[in-house]
Amino acid sequence: MAAMSTDSTGAAARNSPFVRACRREPVPHTPVWFMRQAGRSLPEYREIRANVAMLDSCRRPELVTEITLQPVRRHGVDAAILFSDIVVPVAAAGVDLDIVPGTGPVVAEPVRTAADVQRIRPIGRDDVPYVDEAVRLLVAELGGTPLIGFAGAPFTLASYLVEGGPSRTHAKTKALMHGDPELWHALCGRLADVTLEFLRVQVAAGVSAVQLFDSWAGALSEADYRRFVMPHSAKVLAGLGADVPRIHFGVGTGELLAAMGEAGADVVGVDWRTPLDVATRRIGPDKAVQGNLDPTLLFAPWPVIEAEVRRILGEGRAAPGHVFNLGHGVLPETDPDVLTRVVALVHEVSARPAERG
Amino acid sequence: MAAMSTDSTGAAARNSPFVRACRREPVPHTPVWFMRQAGRSLPEYREIRANVAMLDSCRRPELVTEITLQPVRRHGVDAAILFSDIVVPVAAAGVDLDIVPGTGPVVAEPVRTAADVQRIRPIGRDDVPYVDEAVRLLVAELGGTPLIGFAGAPFTLASYLVEGGPSRTHAKTKALMHGDPELWHALCGRLADVTLEFLRVQVAAGVSAVQLFDSWAGALSEADYRRFVMPHSAKVLAGLGADVPRIHFGVGTGELLAAMGEAGADVVGVDWRTPLDVATRRIGPDKAVQGNLDPTLLFAPWPVIEAEVRRILGEGRAAPGHVFNLGHGVLPETDPDVLTRVVALVHEVSARPAERG
Repeated sequence: MAAMSTDSTGAAARNSPFVRACRREPVPHTPVWFMRQAGRSLPEYREIRANVAMLDSCRRPELVTEITLQPVRRHGVDAAILFSDIVVPVAAAGVDLDIVPGTGPVVAEPVRTAADVQRIRPIGRDDVPYVDEAVRLLVAELGGTPLIGFAGAPFTLASYLVEGGPSRTHAKTKALMHGDPELWHALCGRLADVTLEFLRVQVAAGVSAVQLFDSWAGALSEADYRRFVMPHSAKVLAGLGADVPRIHFGVGTGELLAAMGEAGADVVGVDWRTPLDVATRRIGPDKAVQGNLDPTLLFAPWPVIEAEVRRILGEGRAAPGHVFNLGHGVLPETDPDVLTRVVALVHEVSARPAERG
Repeated sequence: MAAMSTDSTGAAARNSPFVRACRREPVPHTPVWFMRQAGRSLPEYREIRANVAMLDSCRRPELVTEITLQPVRRHGVDAAILFSDIVVPVAAAGVDLDIVPGTGPVVAEPVRTAADVQRIRPIGRDDVPYVDEAVRLLVAELGGTPLIGFAGAPFTLASYLVEGGPSRTHAKTKALMHGDPELWHALCGRLADVTLEFLRVQVAAGVSAVQLFDSWAGALSEADYRRFVMPHSAKVLAGLGADVPRIHFGVGTGELLAAMGEAGADVVGVDWRTPLDVATRRIGPDKAVQGNLDPTLLFAPWPVIEAEVRRILGEGRAAPGHVFNLGHGVLPETDPDVLTRVVALVHEVSARPAERG
């Protein structure tokens, strides 16, 4: 994973199975990576994170680099994803928040007024120098393995800011969008700007693709998604242009898949509830799909996992491009060896002999 | 709400808009009730529950009766639903558990072995005399207003028993179903027997319909639902026969609606993510639907709620029968006056003049 020039590594990454699948081009095998592959399931991660708070760990380029590389070394996945957290750019924009272990992001003063929105500052490269630096270090280290940039989408960020922390119902968020649409759109517009700049820094530093996580979008009806959320996600995705593939993902989004594609994704992430062939019918033939093994099935015996992987690869053939992944993030209790074995199986089962060598 | 003989109240309830809609018969207006209408949103409920533990409150017939009647008096809903909790029959079957405020059901010794399953005893009327008595009191009090019986479905009960409490991922539950299908089916088979008897007691005592809550079924793929869950829910629903309409509901079940109908429901509950016309296309023309206002939208300004109610009534016309409801339970912070206003609006908008008087 080293020793190539930036230009040649960039070219190799652009021609990697992962990027090719995102672009719906022929691939030698179905590429595979795992959401949250860099993180809690790996003992080497838990060791390096001991005594380092989450937000601090996202702001140390050497640490980000090491954590991001760990699953690439261990599992042989087809892509790395920048280790970060969705609230990193929001904190850089001046919002007072922390990530509380066992709870998640906690916002000191939840957003209630236009003045609260005004206090969210625009950001640029100099507000997140550690991200720029980490991406550059990683691109050099990764060689031909592509690096995926990472950001949370405006709705999911807004939910944290309005609720003050994680929420099961997003009741305050939905009350705000319906009760004060002007304030809602002002908030999401500003978050879209922050998100877009956060991703532009990553693209400028050399990531080969980006994933926009709208983790909680599945809490919305399609009508609400289209009216209150889609324009802001579309602003981010359109603002990036087509230089790198754009993956867009949320959990429980079976009814939103078409809309999330229309928001400007090249690849739509699908959780385990919707089979990939069904998802492809909803999304249409001009987008790749990513997914969708149920992360809890990694606790099942291997023959069950193997059958599921084969089923998903089969259903993924209905799509014009398929990136194998889980349907949500790796759970902390997952056995890392099982992930490694899934990578090998995906590569083996999906190998297309005519295109090898 | 009194003074009729049991026979005449039974006949009136059977001819009520609610039961007629469940049976896909013409109705003078779309009937409406709310999941969790008896409970936390009402000050009179919070008052009567002060210093009474949840499980205790479910075992006192007079208290159950009063709590069940409160929303009927206040809102003028078209149906009452027996106040209970899904773990009541499981506790009656000998499982050591408690309902912890702010957490939910907590099971002392989670199910791990065949011996654990064996310890779940069959139940009958004498194990839940308070339910029999409460239903009889209620049917007498309610007059022509139908009473809906209440039970949790085998999968959702099994999840609590296997996880030991509420779970976001249901990881242990899914690991058990895939890792030891024999034990899984033994557990669910026994829970199906318990659930069926719990509902039979209610039907014998006079409920006019039943709702089987498979609250967490939406965590499953359709393939897993059909293999591991549907046979057990079907056993319960088939065991009840067609004497009373059977409603079957879970949240986040967009991909499972057809299967949940096939399990033997007369009415399929739909959460707010799937519009009722889309749901009807998936379920087919031989079932009624119930739903599906997003419970968080009750915090929005009235014009937003009114527009949503009208939209849902419009989409519900695609179904051969529609019972208006929320897409999930009433949230504790809901203003009860808003619920009352929704009932009046549903009745007004859906009134069919030709059939009135």
